[in-house]
Amino acid sequence: MLAFENDYSEGCHPRILEAFARTNLQSEPGYGTDCFCSEATERIRRACAAPEADVVFLTGGTQTNQVVLDALLKPWEGVVAAETGHVAVHEAGAIEATGHKVLTLPQHDGKLDAGELEAFLAAFWADENHEHMVFPGAVYVSHPTEVGTLYSLAELEALSAVCRARAIPLYLDGARLGYGLAAPGTDVTLPDVARLCDAFYIGGTKVGALCGEAVVFPAGAPAHFTTQVKSHGALVAKGRLLGVQFAELFSPAERGADGAGDGLCAAEDTLYGALGAHAIQMAERLRAVLAAHGCTFFLDSPTNQQFVVLDNDACERLRKQVRVSFWERVDEGHTAVRFATSWATRPEDIEALDAVLGEVLRG
Amino acid sequence: MLAFENDYSEGCHPRILEAFARTNLQSEPGYGTDCFCSEATERIRRACAAPEADVVFLTGGTQTNQVVLDALLKPWEGVVAAETGHVAVHEAGAIEATGHKVLTLPQHDGKLDAGELEAFLAAFWADENHEHMVFPGAVYVSHPTEVGTLYSLAELEALSAVCRARAIPLYLDGARLGYGLAAPGTDVTLPDVARLCDAFYIGGTKVGALCGEAVVFPAGAPAHFTTQVKSHGALVAKGRLLGVQFAELFSPAERGADGAGDGLCAAEDTLYGALGAHAIQMAERLRAVLAAHGCTFFLDSPTNQQFVVLDNDACERLRKQVRVSFWERVDEGHTAVRFATSWATRPEDIEALDAVLGEVLRG
Amino acid sequence: MLAFENDYSEGCHPRILEAFARTNLQSEPGYGTDCFCSEATERIRRACAAPEADVVFLTGGTQTNQVVLDALLKPWEGVVAAETGHVAVHEAGAIEATGHKVLTLPQHDGKLDAGELEAFLAAFWADENHEHMVFPGAVYVSHPTEVGTLYSLAELEALSAVCRARAIPLYLDGARLGYGLAAPGTDVTLPDVARLCDAFYIGGTKVGALCGEAVVFPAGAPAHFTTQVKSHGALVAKGRLLGVQFAELFSPAERGADGAGDGLCAAEDTLYGALGAHAIQMAERLRAVLAAHGCTFFLDSPTNQQFVVLDNDACERLRKQVRVSFWERVDEGHTAVRFATSWATRPEDIEALDAVLGEVLRG
Amino acid sequence: MLAFENDYSEGCHPRILEAFARTNLQSEPGYGTDCFCSEATERIRRACAAPEADVVFLTGGTQTNQVVLDALLKPWEGVVAAETGHVAVHEAGAIEATGHKVLTLPQHDGKLDAGELEAFLAAFWADENHEHMVFPGAVYVSHPTEVGTLYSLAELEALSAVCRARAIPLYLDGARLGYGLAAPGTDVTLPDVARLCDAFYIGGTKVGALCGEAVVFPAGAPAHFTTQVKSHGALVAKGRLLGVQFAELFSPAERGADGAGDGLCAAEDTLYGALGAHAIQMAERLRAVLAAHGCTFFLDSPTNQQFVVLDNDACERLRKQVRVSFWERVDEGHTAVRFATSWATRPEDIEALDAVLGEVLRG
Repeated sequence: MLAFENDYSEGCHPRILEAFARTNLQSEPGYGTDCFCSEATERIRRACAAPEADVVFLTGGTQTNQVVLDALLKPWEGVVAAETGHVAVHEAGAIEATGHKVLTLPQHDGKLDAGELEAFLAAFWADENHEHMVFPGAVYVSHPTEVGTLYSLAELEALSAVCRARAIPLYLDGARLGYGLAAPGTDVTLPDVARLCDAFYIGGTKVGALCGEAVVFPAGAPAHFTTQVKSHGALVAKGRLLGVQFAELFSPAERGADGAGDGLCAAEDTLYGALGAHAIQMAERLRAVLAAHGCTFFLDSPTNQQFVVLDNDACERLRKQVRVSFWERVDEGHTAVRFATSWATRPEDIEALDAVLGEVLRG
Repeated sequence: MLAFENDYSEGCHPRILEAFARTNLQSEPGYGTDCFCSEATERIRRACAAPEADVVFLTGGTQTNQVVLDALLKPWEGVVAAETGHVAVHEAGAIEATGHKVLTLPQHDGKLDAGELEAFLAAFWADENHEHMVFPGAVYVSHPTEVGTLYSLAELEALSAVCRARAIPLYLDGARLGYGLAAPGTDVTLPDVARLCDAFYIGGTKVGALCGEAVVFPAGAPAHFTTQVKSHGALVAKGRLLGVQFAELFSPAERGADGAGDGLCAAEDTLYGALGAHAIQMAERLRAVLAAHGCTFFLDSPTNQQFVVLDNDACERLRKQVRVSFWERVDEGHTAVRFATSWATRPEDIEALDAVLGEVLRG
Repeated sequence: MLAFENDYSEGCHPRILEAFARTNLQSEPGYGTDCFCSEATERIRRACAAPEADVVFLTGGTQTNQVVLDALLKPWEGVVAAETGHVAVHEAGAIEATGHKVLTLPQHDGKLDAGELEAFLAAFWADENHEHMVFPGAVYVSHPTEVGTLYSLAELEALSAVCRARAIPLYLDGARLGYGLAAPGTDVTLPDVARLCDAFYIGGTKVGALCGEAVVFPAGAPAHFTTQVKSHGALVAKGRLLGVQFAELFSPAERGADGAGDGLCAAEDTLYGALGAHAIQMAERLRAVLAAHGCTFFLDSPTNQQFVVLDNDACERLRKQVRVSFWERVDEGHTAVRFATSWATRPEDIEALDAVLGEVLRG
Repeated sequence: MLAFENDYSEGCHPRILEAFARTNLQSEPGYGTDCFCSEATERIRRACAAPEADVVFLTGGTQTNQVVLDALLKPWEGVVAAETGHVAVHEAGAIEATGHKVLTLPQHDGKLDAGELEAFLAAFWADENHEHMVFPGAVYVSHPTEVGTLYSLAELEALSAVCRARAIPLYLDGARLGYGLAAPGTDVTLPDVARLCDAFYIGGTKVGALCGEAVVFPAGAPAHFTTQVKSHGALVAKGRLLGVQFAELFSPAERGADGAGDGLCAAEDTLYGALGAHAIQMAERLRAVLAAHGCTFFLDSPTNQQFVVLDNDACERLRKQVRVSFWERVDEGHTAVRFATSWATRPEDIEALDAVLGEVLRG
């Protein structure tokens, strides 16, 4: 069975396994105070061009959104998100479980619009009854979005400007950030993200790690953040589990012939950068194959997730040979499905898919 | 520097790294529905002699206590624990963060007394004002306790009987369960735990895994437990991370010469059982060495944690060469410290400690 | 200054003050176990034709919504409401503060549509990812709605049928229920509400009481509801405060010449019924006056709240002489405002308004 | 049946009913912005000698403790209280329901000891693991305590000094403050309370009001406190309900012959002061009667609650004629019960009790 279902179906990049093996018996203190977390922090600061940043490692995306937003929001505040935002729809109410409302705005290809955000914030403060309402206390964006789209630098700058003018933190969910940074045509770099956001995370789980997300606070973490992480059940005893992985992901993609070359480097030169670039190459081939077979794209995504609309019969035939994700029912007779590439996708997987599609779409 | 600080200082048992490598590129679905979680579940059911049990894998101990207790408790209920219970003291309020009170009872070598528990429950129900109080809705015990002690089978049976008579679930925190099951003189087996408790977890993080705890509900998990795990931010996308580890830990300790021998087996024959037994062997040597040097034991622990009282000067000298955990200040001039062995402790570590102690305690 | 701002600007109906005086020194137990709460319960059961109902008295509307919904919802569930529902917009996140999401559907004149509700519920259960989403666990409607509109009996029956087919409780916010029951043309009676809803409250604060809402559970209250009320800080020590008021409000509107006539009676024959009817009479006069002055109605409300659109200058002139509520900005030059009548509105207030409008709207 | 069960069995002082009647039809805005709340605020500021204080009116004691502590505490903090503190025992977990732990210290006649508090705080900060623990973020005391005892001025000053040295707010639960201020021998005045505490409430429900507690923040309320009150379901629409009562309670006890004399005045000259003084007079008579009958006092209380130990038979006979509160079982054969006086207790009630005791205790 071919697997294009998602980007977390395999284990992890082999260099991470090597790093685990290499460091396995080194004795280190717990709770993120180990030397691997320190090394990972230094590497990430360099890749983000954010030398003062606090970096904290957590195990998963929903956990990260929950812990970080709960720490950023005051008790009377909620977080503003697009109506399709992961926090609004697919986290089983993890934000509300901490007492905070998700305040939704319309989505445009999965994105928030800075003008609409400003209008919303202005209307809130102008409302004579706003003391009876949930205060907007942070803004959530995902990049890439849940449908694989990307903010342009100008869009991200506009959102950041709105937030800063009102002293509301901008938080970016980078579950697939590696794929966004490597996308063709994007003008957003990791240092841009660090410059424009008040908090964000660099996703590991979906970009080659066994697990883990690196939360970055460019200007420093919220007060007593370790305790807040602990009280959410999110503090890992063996912090090295995450430190080792992110230290490796942010090491140079190319090691020196002498095994050296472990210096700090820019985001695009890291293993993380290389994994993103690989998945995007595979996505471009995938896209070409899907287009060649006449598939209708559900929307235009420049990243590793590709959405196509199939008639229900073709869809059913396809799913017998290829694992893809059901996305949504488009109409009585058609279904949107998602194909995802990842660091683990091989050229031969795309070729095999090409063959299957020929068979399946012939009808 | 010698490391006896805790049992989570190293990575994981090498067989776990091998298992990761072996399964790495196998494509599997997410969120715990992978084949490794299924295999681990079958192995754990066998080891627990609980064929109907639901088994769920989470990443850490505090997270597990938080998620499971929140799922077991009704909104108007709290959990009863010894005043020294981990949930009462060292989880940064993770239980209260979900809205539940920890109701504390006196500890006896870290343990709850069944008679006192029954008296407490009887008094609650007899109190004319109990509708204005937090209802006791679950009982928490740790085994081994926070100070390394163990319940006898009779004690555990008595607690279980009190709980069942009042239809209150008994939950056992088994962060170090592997070390408890292997302790000399214990008459509590894993099937006993499964028979007497309504929920418990088998700790992986401190017993050889990179991370992970296996929650066992012998008679089935609470309703919509996956969603409850998700809303606590505890659902891992790559469930295989945990499935692979527990499948390996509950595989036979001894593999056949032909690489075979992967059948289901009893707890004591698993790798998990062997790791526990090894740490206990090391703990007995450690204990002998400490005794030989005339150390005063803070309390009598049959498991992998050993607590001794040192005068402050000796303590300071010791901590320059050996990493141990500060436990508590005993009086002006004395300090209790904890030595822990683990699956990773080597005989030569004990020998090296012996030498250091000779030097340090001579004064 | 004329006051048409809302229906809670004055104290309470004089008969309530008399009842307080009459009962003042009678010594009664606390926390709702007094004889007045019992009497009020009996009277409300009769008015609802719900002899088995549990009736609980709370002090305010947001408190009631919070306590009742938190008791009805399981931890993994949220409440479905119209996007304009009070719980969704104007309660400062009181529902989310208890950990539950408000799931919003489109509003139609402030109302939920049964067909859309069913479609939403069906889509939820059909979604392959619904375990990652908030489960719909109760449905919230307000009657009258936030904009003064009413469900027809057929509409309410349709909503109730959808809810019962899926075993989801239907909860009705009756902050202004008295005005809804007395509205011209309505075919919904109090026994209908009790028959079709699983929980609802009869608003006192806005219908003649000093404070208080009577929560009715036609088939019995949730488990340990008193304790749940207490843990929300909503249990009043002097329960008589609420019991006395509701016992009076649900006494006959007309007392016998001999001071007798205190028997149980139907909703429309109670003081509560009479207060509602009075406010509606006043609202009809108000409506006629507004129409006579050529006001444009923002929407068509049959209850005690009337919404009109004024040009901004007229609005400003009006607000110098009459207290009305700002509702919303309609466009650059126009504003919608709300006029409310109540049990306390006098015919001469309407006449005085008539005169003011003549002056103000002349421009 | 004689009623000495508690101090909230009757309605309210007649002057409050008069005040309701006098103000009933005056039209005022909602949510605490009415002129009565303003007047009450001015009167309370004067009585507290705290001209900058923010004063907020809530309906009940548990609600007040919950709302105020949740607003004072950071998410990672808990409140320190005596093990017998109302928040620790008798509020059905209302504090934990907002996510905060109650950290208990030993009680001494119901009181916290400043030295023990300082030792606890010092130990917390000295603990190497304190990041894994709940931070002490506020200190709760009740005055009078749950057993009727009082802090001396020196004790309160010592607690305040400990709190201020560590920048932790001191919060005083004054459910029965009126009775404490009027107690014989107390050297604590209302201005002392305002000077030494960072937040406290002046209880109305148990001191002559129908309902209501006045929260005082001598140096100003927490940010967006109205919204925080609203999100706890505690914001009353008809704020006048509370404003009218506290304006009356803090008016002069003696009105001028000309109906005048409504100026601001010191606490002891207010109606609230007079009600406290009356109950204390009655308590002293009660105490004398109990002593005369040879009753053993459970502890020594100078306020309106008197606790005596009776043998079970006498207790049973007593409860057939007098309503008293069960306090606790002392031993097999004896029970402690509570007698309470209040603003409503009449000399003839004490005389009647005298007669009953003669009969009952004769055996």
